[in-house]
Amino acid sequence: MLGVDPGLTVTGWGVVEANGSVLRSVAYGVIASSAESPLPLRLAAIFRQLVQVIGSHQPVVAAIEEVFMARNAASALKLGQARGAAMVAVSHCGLAVHEYSALLIKKSVVGYGRADKQQVQAMVRLLLAMPELPRADAADALAAAVCHIHHAATAQRLVAAS
Amino acid sequence: MLGVDPGLTVTGWGVVEANGSVLRSVAYGVIASSAESPLPLRLAAIFRQLVQVIGSHQPVVAAIEEVFMARNAASALKLGQARGAAMVAVSHCGLAVHEYSALLIKKSVVGYGRADKQQVQAMVRLLLAMPELPRADAADALAAAVCHIHHAATAQRLVAAS
Repeated sequence: MLGVDPGLTVTGWGVVEANGSVLRSVAYGVIASSAESPLPLRLAAIFRQLVQVIGSHQPVVAAIEEVFMARNAASALKLGQARGAAMVAVSHCGLAVHEYSALLIKKSVVGYGRADKQQVQAMVRLLLAMPELPRADAADALAAAVCHIHHAATAQRLVAAS
Repeated sequence: MLGVDPGLTVTGWGVVEANGSVLRSVAYGVIASSAESPLPLRLAAIFRQLVQVIGSHQPVVAAIEEVFMARNAASALKLGQARGAAMVAVSHCGLAVHEYSALLIKKSVVGYGRADKQQVQAMVRLLLAMPELPRADAADALAAAVCHIHHAATAQRLVAAS
């Protein structure tokens, strides 16, 4: 299970494994790029590094934060480009992509949709029994993966019960 | 020389060949996607079809319209995602990418930065001696390619003169 938190400056990613109800983080990290680097190279780095992560860890499903509205048109354009590069990497590798709202992701890990970044980091660390606090962008990516696992499990229980 | 005019609903593309000052369109087309199709598949289609076009025609340089500002955050996000998918395709295939403003592209083909879509279509047809009018999105992509060829030629003459 791969979680991705795309951004032009920093894209977070995290691979989570579920063994029954026990979750653990297999690997996580960030893809950072300098604002001085040309845009095509920055987008290509997001694509290439995500393809490498997928090649190394072989997840079959990806979760990504859904974006309804950005602060303004300029930041929406930047975020959109990073998101396009990340989605193409994931689709290109044949993963199924699920989108979840930030509200649902936070609710899923912290139990509260308006949780701040620190709360998400702390709860992700706890839920995945991580030895150290993941940095915010990686924590958001891991949280998206946890959110998908919770929702997939609920969906399966509903099917089993019917 | 590949020109791309990215868009989530329609992405135009065109391959232009320069033989001295004589230009011709080698191939052009549009990648259209339905709003009912899931976003990851729409973006993957832009990526995949551009990779196919590049594989078939082997351009080494790509020109793409630069976007400074979109109408609003929602349309900027859509455009950004399509642009990200297109840029990743082009970078992934090893092409150098050049960005030109819409103003410069229009000026380059019509001689007037505020030209409308019909004027761009008509001038692209004329410049590339095309038997029929290309549809607007393909014409914009071909215009970006023509713009790059004009600018590259000017740059070379400047170097030669110095």
